[in-house]
Amino acid sequence: MVNETQHTCSASSSSRSDGGSSSGSESSKDNSRCSTPVLDADRHERLRDKMRRRQDAGDKWFSLEFFPPRTANAAVNLISRFDRMGAGGPLFIDVTWHPAGDPGSDKETSSMIIANTAVNYCGLETILHMTCCNQTKDDITGHLQKAKRLGLKNIMALRGDPAGEEWEEEVDGFNYAVDLVKHIRNEFDDYFDICVAGYPKGHPEAESYAADLRHLKEKVFAGADFIITQLFFRPETFLKFMKDCQAIGITCPIIPGIFPIQGYHSLRQLVKLSKLEVPQEIKDVIEPIKDNDAAIRNYGVELAVSMCRELLDSGMVHGLHFYTLNREVATTEVLKRLGIWKEDPRRPLPWAVSAHPKRRVEDVRPIFWASRPKSYIYRTQEWDDFPNGRWGNSSSPAFGELKDYYLFYLKSKSPREELLKMWGEELTGEESVFEVFTCYITGEPNRNGYKVTCMPWNDDPLATETNLLKDQLEKVNRRGILTINSQPNINGKPSTDPIVGWGPSGGYVFQKAYLEFFTSSEIVTALLKVLKKYELRVNYHIVNVKGQNITNAPDLQPNAVTWGIFPGREIIQPTVVDPVSFLSWKDEAFALWIEQWAKLYEEESPSRMIIQYIHDNYYLVNLVDNDFPLENCLWQVVEDTFELLN
Amino acid sequence: MVNETQHTCSASSSSRSDGGSSSGSESSKDNSRCSTPVLDADRHERLRDKMRRRQDAGDKWFSLEFFPPRTANAAVNLISRFDRMGAGGPLFIDVTWHPAGDPGSDKETSSMIIANTAVNYCGLETILHMTCCNQTKDDITGHLQKAKRLGLKNIMALRGDPAGEEWEEEVDGFNYAVDLVKHIRNEFDDYFDICVAGYPKGHPEAESYAADLRHLKEKVFAGADFIITQLFFRPETFLKFMKDCQAIGITCPIIPGIFPIQGYHSLRQLVKLSKLEVPQEIKDVIEPIKDNDAAIRNYGVELAVSMCRELLDSGMVHGLHFYTLNREVATTEVLKRLGIWKEDPRRPLPWAVSAHPKRRVEDVRPIFWASRPKSYIYRTQEWDDFPNGRWGNSSSPAFGELKDYYLFYLKSKSPREELLKMWGEELTGEESVFEVFTCYITGEPNRNGYKVTCMPWNDDPLATETNLLKDQLEKVNRRGILTINSQPNINGKPSTDPIVGWGPSGGYVFQKAYLEFFTSSEIVTALLKVLKKYELRVNYHIVNVKGQNITNAPDLQPNAVTWGIFPGREIIQPTVVDPVSFLSWKDEAFALWIEQWAKLYEEESPSRMIIQYIHDNYYLVNLVDNDFPLENCLWQVVEDTFELLN
Repeated sequence: MVNETQHTCSASSSSRSDGGSSSGSESSKDNSRCSTPVLDADRHERLRDKMRRRQDAGDKWFSLEFFPPRTANAAVNLISRFDRMGAGGPLFIDVTWHPAGDPGSDKETSSMIIANTAVNYCGLETILHMTCCNQTKDDITGHLQKAKRLGLKNIMALRGDPAGEEWEEEVDGFNYAVDLVKHIRNEFDDYFDICVAGYPKGHPEAESYAADLRHLKEKVFAGADFIITQLFFRPETFLKFMKDCQAIGITCPIIPGIFPIQGYHSLRQLVKLSKLEVPQEIKDVIEPIKDNDAAIRNYGVELAVSMCRELLDSGMVHGLHFYTLNREVATTEVLKRLGIWKEDPRRPLPWAVSAHPKRRVEDVRPIFWASRPKSYIYRTQEWDDFPNGRWGNSSSPAFGELKDYYLFYLKSKSPREELLKMWGEELTGEESVFEVFTCYITGEPNRNGYKVTCMPWNDDPLATETNLLKDQLEKVNRRGILTINSQPNINGKPSTDPIVGWGPSGGYVFQKAYLEFFTSSEIVTALLKVLKKYELRVNYHIVNVKGQNITNAPDLQPNAVTWGIFPGREIIQPTVVDPVSFLSWKDEAFALWIEQWAKLYEEESPSRMIIQYIHDNYYLVNLVDNDFPLENCLWQVVEDTFELLN
Repeated sequence: MVNETQHTCSASSSSRSDGGSSSGSESSKDNSRCSTPVLDADRHERLRDKMRRRQDAGDKWFSLEFFPPRTANAAVNLISRFDRMGAGGPLFIDVTWHPAGDPGSDKETSSMIIANTAVNYCGLETILHMTCCNQTKDDITGHLQKAKRLGLKNIMALRGDPAGEEWEEEVDGFNYAVDLVKHIRNEFDDYFDICVAGYPKGHPEAESYAADLRHLKEKVFAGADFIITQLFFRPETFLKFMKDCQAIGITCPIIPGIFPIQGYHSLRQLVKLSKLEVPQEIKDVIEPIKDNDAAIRNYGVELAVSMCRELLDSGMVHGLHFYTLNREVATTEVLKRLGIWKEDPRRPLPWAVSAHPKRRVEDVRPIFWASRPKSYIYRTQEWDDFPNGRWGNSSSPAFGELKDYYLFYLKSKSPREELLKMWGEELTGEESVFEVFTCYITGEPNRNGYKVTCMPWNDDPLATETNLLKDQLEKVNRRGILTINSQPNINGKPSTDPIVGWGPSGGYVFQKAYLEFFTSSEIVTALLKVLKKYELRVNYHIVNVKGQNITNAPDLQPNAVTWGIFPGREIIQPTVVDPVSFLSWKDEAFALWIEQWAKLYEEESPSRMIIQYIHDNYYLVNLVDNDFPLENCLWQVVEDTFELLN
């Protein structure tokens, strides 16, 4: 049970709002219960409250800093890194602001858009850095408004480095970070959580360490919520700084910035930029091994682990902030050795939730986008409301159309040459396509010896859960039932089940068996005859690219196919098969044949024409077996169909 | 599966609304899906559509006519009769309009309020009669507005009998039923379904049979939706009338009015009022047995059954309308012999739904009012929205307070003397109260030889479902755990299960075990200690009349305790344990000790003081065992509590 607390309070007997509250505070007096079951308090809190709650609970946490990439390809890779490193459970990530890189623009590589992707597509609590020097108030307000619009809730307010050689105060502009903090509070009230930078050794340009501390206090008193420090090399540097801060009345959280040394050159560069001095004992170790990257990284990890341990053991530090330099290995290693990398991050829902404030209530999605969650988020980004318990609301808005920019999210991580090796340099007929699907399922190499590790509908290898169905999937793909999505039936497994579990512990999860595939019209004709026998048990929906549309969904109602029962909660039903949104998904699913596969080949080449033929003539089919406590009958349906054809 | 239909339609590929529709009509083009899962199409249709659908499906149906009672006690009895006869599955009931009885007033016995009760509290589709002669337009508009406000959707438009001896047309008033039909359509557009009367023998005041048919046609063409006929004694009378109607172009449904003869005097009176002639062959049978009520009723049943059979066999008749004279036996007998009395009316939800249009989307209620559904409906009648899938909406309105009029619904069907026999003429201590609870559970007579068939919290004998828990309930009541509500845990029984099933077939129903009781502070103290052991498994909520309030409900979220999984549907979760509404229920539950029990005794009598003591000092407790697949642990919790006390 999450956040189980006992409430005892005396209440007058007539008012409904006197029933105690979740935190002993007065919140229940405002009838402020959420309208959606709170499975994951994190989704409903702002960053400073999460930080406070973790501290109160004695939980140690970490956060990760990234910089925006230079190219669109690098952006695709960084987003994958967000997903992988997000799995370790950072409290937040932050994205730096590069004034030279058009940071507030709509480019895929801008700070703004990378932070947007982290929040909306990767579901990560995110801080966007923002610098103020050499910018007009209007520019800054514009950036902040845009950040707010995109769902960003946290700003790291920095001065930034002046453009010219000499530092001159601008009379009407922003000269210090404190001006930016004040501006944010003036213009946006309490909307943003604000973070500011602290310098354990004092800012290099400050008159003195003491003067710098006073500046920091000004920033906090102007409205900053917490402090992240510049990197440092010795734990005592940070601990002294923290005590000095407290001594002058700074009481907000101060998070040490940790820099695991990952290489000789990156260290030198960082030191140069930050005007810090590397202690002699570190230089003594590094200089002799400066050409041995692995040795330096191992040393860097050791050093970081021992420094972090000392910080945590001091009792004064609850969270650690990592300067990752956009790299994974060293930071992940440090976190794992510290034991604060979440090995088994519990899934609050069976799909990865988005961190956009608008989507905090989102608790149900159609199953169709299960392997393409980013595409789903993209296509629903204009929605004002997210289906709140009920999917089939008559006022639910349409899906966004497939647009150019969208292709960014359609884009595969693998380059063309690799895709051709996996999916075939040359196709000889529909059977070559069946083979590709079959190899993807089995994990066996294809006839040219290459493993098929992704498909147009799925950028990753087969999910563990789908593995449960591997043998049957292999059999049907060989015969032209080209599966792109499936789940087994589950009749009440514990919510902690490592494969199918989700939600808080103490609950039970359920699924109806689901199967979705492309197949020929010949097979569809036989299938429809077979389905008559299963009429009361199996719901089906069959469409082709022209919009021919056959379903037995009663009243076009959605069918819940994944649900969970938890202690003290309403039922959660996060996945539905919705006959209306299936028609939007169908457009996307068919488009992927062309955009990702056919276009690998020359126009009018036989290979391209084979894919085009499938696109034009095959049907997309989904089947749900409603009788979840019995053995999944969908395989029998397919078996009967093949039998009818023979 | 309800309303399972196969949709085949060709749709353009980009629009989400092109996915076919439930009836092959254009409705899906308007995105007109219901926002709540349609488990029971009946709840969402207007009467004329239900009638049409039943006719198209070849279903035979019946309806029942009642008149308003004279006294408040008779009203309480009539409402119980509505519940009992409603269980047989009438398509609708109708309530006659008695101009002399202040039919539009707020009196418990007025036509308006009886019809209101039938719709809102008994969940019956209801037609309110309304007559127009000797009334002003404003009066009539006022009545219609009130009917609309109360949730009535159907009006039987009648002329009524003129007040004086001689019939005179009023220049500016309503002289004929057709005027009323026109007025309703003018003022209320298509809001009401309108029924008019047909006279198989012609209206006694009409110039001729043919002229009367023309008047009927006028009423239909003015906007009436269907016709109910005056009673008649021979099937051929009706069949000829129906053909004559069709011959002049009346195509709407015509429902024969059936009058099972129930006694000599009631027949004579009705014949006098309706100016009909009883055929000689009937008189010949009746006159010799006119003092033998049973014999006449048996004959009346035989006669009605054979006439109804002939009507139904003609293929022209789909529904039968019964003039019940507010009596049950004869009509029920006829319906059972015809085989159209529903022996096993499927429950669309585990509680009886209300037929008020506002409540058509209502699909969840707190469990607390399970035995007092009318009280729940009364106390929520001012709500504009009904919890739609989510109970804990922060904007959900408060419960209506306990008011005077409300006492009508608190009123027991049993008179004071009977209650004293059941609950004790004289109480000697808390143990005498324990005994009453125990006798109610066991069904054994109390020490004075009387069976306890009702309790202040439950006007009916123990429910079949509660019977499943009888032995354990008996044990704990004997020892002062005074249970007033409970349900066993259910881990996926078929929705057709005769005891715990509900909803369409092909589904599965689930329950978490629930127990609610009053008990002493001594037991509560021990219970709280025991509950620590069950912290992750059992949710509890403990309150006393002063508002002391102890719960471990996470974030004051409701806990779903009854839910169902159906083919092609979202999850339905019709019953919740809601920590906020429990505080409103607590007021009512404690008030019942005083209003229904303590007040049976003289002020300051020892008996009254005992009940007052319990009211002032006991706690109301609810417990939910969240682990529904395991054996119910609540009995163990209670057992542990008693052990701790010993």
